[in-house]
Amino acid sequence: MADTFQKGTSLVHEDRLFPANLDMRDIARRLYSEVKDLPIISPHGHTDPSWFANNAPFGNPAELLLAPDHYIYRMLYGQGISLDALGVPSKAGNPDTDPREAWRIFAENYYLFRGTPSRLWLDHVFNEVFGLSEPLDGSTADAYYDVINTALQSDAYRPRALFDRFNIELLATTECPTDTLDHHKTIQSSGWGGRVISAYRPDAVIDADHERFQAALDEFADITGEETRSWTGYLAAHRKRREDFKAIGTTSSDHGHPTAFTADLGAAEAEALFDKVVAGKGTAKDHELFRGQMLTEMARMSVDDGLVLQIHPGSCRNHNGPLFQSHGRDKGADIPMQTDYVHALRPLLNAFGNDPRLSIIVFTLDETSYSRELAPLAGHYPALKLGPAWWFHDSPEGMRRFREQTTETAGFYNTVGFNDDTRAFLSIPARHDVARRVDCSFLARLVAEHRLREDEAQELARALAYDLAKAAYKL
Amino acid sequence: MADTFQKGTSLVHEDRLFPANLDMRDIARRLYSEVKDLPIISPHGHTDPSWFANNAPFGNPAELLLAPDHYIYRMLYGQGISLDALGVPSKAGNPDTDPREAWRIFAENYYLFRGTPSRLWLDHVFNEVFGLSEPLDGSTADAYYDVINTALQSDAYRPRALFDRFNIELLATTECPTDTLDHHKTIQSSGWGGRVISAYRPDAVIDADHERFQAALDEFADITGEETRSWTGYLAAHRKRREDFKAIGTTSSDHGHPTAFTADLGAAEAEALFDKVVAGKGTAKDHELFRGQMLTEMARMSVDDGLVLQIHPGSCRNHNGPLFQSHGRDKGADIPMQTDYVHALRPLLNAFGNDPRLSIIVFTLDETSYSRELAPLAGHYPALKLGPAWWFHDSPEGMRRFREQTTETAGFYNTVGFNDDTRAFLSIPARHDVARRVDCSFLARLVAEHRLREDEAQELARALAYDLAKAAYKL
Amino acid sequence: MADTFQKGTSLVHEDRLFPANLDMRDIARRLYSEVKDLPIISPHGHTDPSWFANNAPFGNPAELLLAPDHYIYRMLYGQGISLDALGVPSKAGNPDTDPREAWRIFAENYYLFRGTPSRLWLDHVFNEVFGLSEPLDGSTADAYYDVINTALQSDAYRPRALFDRFNIELLATTECPTDTLDHHKTIQSSGWGGRVISAYRPDAVIDADHERFQAALDEFADITGEETRSWTGYLAAHRKRREDFKAIGTTSSDHGHPTAFTADLGAAEAEALFDKVVAGKGTAKDHELFRGQMLTEMARMSVDDGLVLQIHPGSCRNHNGPLFQSHGRDKGADIPMQTDYVHALRPLLNAFGNDPRLSIIVFTLDETSYSRELAPLAGHYPALKLGPAWWFHDSPEGMRRFREQTTETAGFYNTVGFNDDTRAFLSIPARHDVARRVDCSFLARLVAEHRLREDEAQELARALAYDLAKAAYKL
Repeated sequence: MADTFQKGTSLVHEDRLFPANLDMRDIARRLYSEVKDLPIISPHGHTDPSWFANNAPFGNPAELLLAPDHYIYRMLYGQGISLDALGVPSKAGNPDTDPREAWRIFAENYYLFRGTPSRLWLDHVFNEVFGLSEPLDGSTADAYYDVINTALQSDAYRPRALFDRFNIELLATTECPTDTLDHHKTIQSSGWGGRVISAYRPDAVIDADHERFQAALDEFADITGEETRSWTGYLAAHRKRREDFKAIGTTSSDHGHPTAFTADLGAAEAEALFDKVVAGKGTAKDHELFRGQMLTEMARMSVDDGLVLQIHPGSCRNHNGPLFQSHGRDKGADIPMQTDYVHALRPLLNAFGNDPRLSIIVFTLDETSYSRELAPLAGHYPALKLGPAWWFHDSPEGMRRFREQTTETAGFYNTVGFNDDTRAFLSIPARHDVARRVDCSFLARLVAEHRLREDEAQELARALAYDLAKAAYKL
Repeated sequence: MADTFQKGTSLVHEDRLFPANLDMRDIARRLYSEVKDLPIISPHGHTDPSWFANNAPFGNPAELLLAPDHYIYRMLYGQGISLDALGVPSKAGNPDTDPREAWRIFAENYYLFRGTPSRLWLDHVFNEVFGLSEPLDGSTADAYYDVINTALQSDAYRPRALFDRFNIELLATTECPTDTLDHHKTIQSSGWGGRVISAYRPDAVIDADHERFQAALDEFADITGEETRSWTGYLAAHRKRREDFKAIGTTSSDHGHPTAFTADLGAAEAEALFDKVVAGKGTAKDHELFRGQMLTEMARMSVDDGLVLQIHPGSCRNHNGPLFQSHGRDKGADIPMQTDYVHALRPLLNAFGNDPRLSIIVFTLDETSYSRELAPLAGHYPALKLGPAWWFHDSPEGMRRFREQTTETAGFYNTVGFNDDTRAFLSIPARHDVARRVDCSFLARLVAEHRLREDEAQELARALAYDLAKAAYKL
Repeated sequence: MADTFQKGTSLVHEDRLFPANLDMRDIARRLYSEVKDLPIISPHGHTDPSWFANNAPFGNPAELLLAPDHYIYRMLYGQGISLDALGVPSKAGNPDTDPREAWRIFAENYYLFRGTPSRLWLDHVFNEVFGLSEPLDGSTADAYYDVINTALQSDAYRPRALFDRFNIELLATTECPTDTLDHHKTIQSSGWGGRVISAYRPDAVIDADHERFQAALDEFADITGEETRSWTGYLAAHRKRREDFKAIGTTSSDHGHPTAFTADLGAAEAEALFDKVVAGKGTAKDHELFRGQMLTEMARMSVDDGLVLQIHPGSCRNHNGPLFQSHGRDKGADIPMQTDYVHALRPLLNAFGNDPRLSIIVFTLDETSYSRELAPLAGHYPALKLGPAWWFHDSPEGMRRFREQTTETAGFYNTVGFNDDTRAFLSIPARHDVARRVDCSFLARLVAEHRLREDEAQELARALAYDLAKAAYKL
């Protein structure tokens, strides 16, 4: 069993992701050497705060690395392997799957991940977290399972120990307005030095298409003592909970709407819309209008309370109807769709986009908007910045396209560094490492092509790895 | 005249299409050396089965290489050269054009193809099929014409001899359900060993916007003995003909719809729609709905009879009205248009996409869907795979974009290798060679950047050149 | 103060923008060495003809380089710097800003432009026009200001002297049909040898959404003596003014519509539409239809008078409402939007696209159309050619994407070389130099990958830098 990080084996080459051209590679190496050990700022993600509150050991390899990670089981499912065989929970509960058997299936099919970022992240985890150096396949499946399983039972692999070992300076989780934030309070009163904050994610109380909308409104009333079925009370409840989130360190809200649509209705019109939607009388169009109006309301609150506003649109959720019936949400069946920003964001930007006190961070799954819409918008509006390459595009080629297609119009300083957006805690160092390597490689090209001096690139490498995230998220 | 393949001349360099970086080039060379001589699997194309049934000599150079190839004459037409001057047939018949004169015009304007894949394919054909080594231009036009013309009269250049020489293991043509398949039957009973199959392409009996729809329905009745103007008889006719196609080796159907729209109507609703459309009372929207419903019906049949379902949407056919009037279909005036897959394919995928027995292969002319829609869909649904870079994108840059934009989400194993989709028989080896070189170059970059081991890349090079096509098309 | 061009300093490296790979770099150097000193053809731009008519000295550095250039102040504004502080005029007039103070703010924030083409152009101007060689930042701000300010007062920096020094063979400005063309007449009768022509840009008299539409129609009547509120008189007025523009050397018209929509109405229908629109009774849809019809009318006139028709669609103008209120048009708040060409251009192309006498040049801000729509269209229609990478895409990465995504389908010869489209006169040599370097680098890759012979690349390098612009714009 490994309790140190081992490098340089065949699983993770020290020059991985750097350009093959030797001149560029040398520049990339120099840039990377100055940023590789910077602490990790993870301002947007989906880890479970109870891990750090309770600090209990993680479960077995399959339960930790396989069953919760839709990046991984979607690929296996897509090749005809059943989710049951992988131990992925359904609405009926956890399937009765031997975790070692699930792991073997994964190992035998690990070749499917060739060329994907999951492969890079997993090899990094295997090698640098668990000290493994032979490639994973059917022949090494059991050895892998044993090494990882044993490690997970040791204190060095408990959540807080890993957090410290990973050199994480800050980690943000994501919670609903109806969350008690008890785990975060436990962490903060524990005496442990790790900084774990939350992000305010009110989708369930904003999106009337969400299956829990009505129930969430009730819980929202309970936790705030506000009348959340009146427009005034509803807004007051948001303001109250935003303060609660701020009290445990939160600096941002987060909004996962189907589109980037925003609206800026008059007060009376907004109230009438709210009444209709809450009464369950809204059409699909009313629901969209209400979501759009609420982004503008959130921006208005942000101007007052300083929370950064994150907008993540463009996913067609639960595309696979039968799978949604059997297994519910977040099972790898969310598919990106074409997304307009230029018209969609205009009401919000015309209302608050000229205010430099406000910070709006926009993400996209539609790469066509990088050069056409997002870079021109972020390069103009003082309030707007671009989140990093996101989700399916959180990958070497995706990051490269992001830089190539946004930098010339928006520059580097209207972007916000990297965030990992992950629930796979063990992969966080791997993901930040990939981002640092890819950004250093992009910068190395600019230097090698004499478009940037190396001292500038060095400053930028640090900004992209650390400074910009800290500044943009007001940390 | 040449009867052997000559290499290494100025027309086709042995390192063509490999990366300029020497480390990557060396890797690419090694990968390519293991796949360059693999037999050609051509599971989707548009060659004429009568060539292999009759084995008659091809005509003159202009008639063989110029007049039927809209990749070539569209470029010349676009620079103001008339189709008549090139010998391209119109509705009025073949123009009275001296083929040598047409060839000279082509040769004088061959510089227009610089940077296009047509140039790569043609130089390959000139050099490796005809042994020519001087560049084609006005000064060499006549010499070219004579060499090619003489060769075509020899037995070594008859269709079957070339098929054998090209090392083609399997070639699929494409036929309508109203085709007798006589040529295929002739080939199979001829004693010649070449394997030539068909693909079932029922557009004319499915697309009510097709000018031959009503006539084709009648022929469909004649050839099947079914009542093709009743819903039950119509479906039975499809089932019958699919079996006929299977009997001569067919393993796939092929559907060239304007969009990727699919529908999954109830039985009564589908029948009512059919009745309306067949009666000529359908609106444009009804025609679209019927096309969409039929893709789902074809999938239903595929689950039973095992045919692979190919969908090729997104071309705005016959964009040039005056040219369509004078020259008819397929004259280089089909223009790609923006194509949605995420909503369009949902009904079909929700009905049959979770069934691993089914194999659906989707192609696109809208590259924006690679990373946004197609790779996420193919990386999730067991039944769905991605066809290669298609038509205008069947080119070095197009193939590179395909790999760069699909691999990270769909991996390599949700793609189906290369197919040439061509009616230009002599260019088939050239096209497969380009694909093998470009894929090896892409893999070489992954190896040089330490994202893949070379032994994995070698396995993948073979899969992309040969194994995946064979598996995906159930050959 | 510098009166010679100094090279090779740290600001502009002699190998800038060439590939890092040494083999490719050597090829790129050789190609570039043959085209770098070719005269500049600038057939499309927005410089002020009064500069060359009056030949008065330019103002101070901030007034010349900062206040009029929305590429520059949009980035500074986007980071929270007020336009007043930069000396940018508002509707209230010029702010009372010390130009040296504005320059200092610019200098301190010059790092924001890292990775942008503005940085490349500005460093080129600083170094090659003003002989500066230290990087611009807060510490060099005053020295820069003094050097530039002193230079601008010398005769060597007057407009005509710079025009001659820049080796400009032809420069086109852009004027409304209501312009007297007096500056152009002055230039032509001045005895100075510089060739400055105009482009006919009738947006204000065609676009009923333009705030000056009605007033412009009146001026259009005044300057032509035609009844511009009758369809016949209106068309006659266009014809007359097109002749006036031709008389001072104009060879093209230019159309900046929101979309690429075209229409081809019957004569009576067109007249009825015109009457409705001019009477102020048109809907938004009527205005769009009228703009579309007028593109076809302009094409009809072009067939007669030979003017090249330029179409520049796809910008959502004045996106920032509050800024438009305070500062008016052209303040960096025009944002590209998704643009269809395949359906939009069909009426125009079906009417005139098969006529090789006509030359239509289309530009786009939506890069997704390069490979999907524009290259296939330009590779087929005799009348259609592709303008270069435009506006936000006039950049190294933008130009590379343009070549990579258009060449394989349209070839090089359906493109029209480079144009700078700028109002920043001093940056014209820098912009053409960037284009020449990027095109030579693209060609070098094709040569290094054995897709093109070097002698062909050399011919192409010259065509892209000089010949194609001259031919396409009929100069």
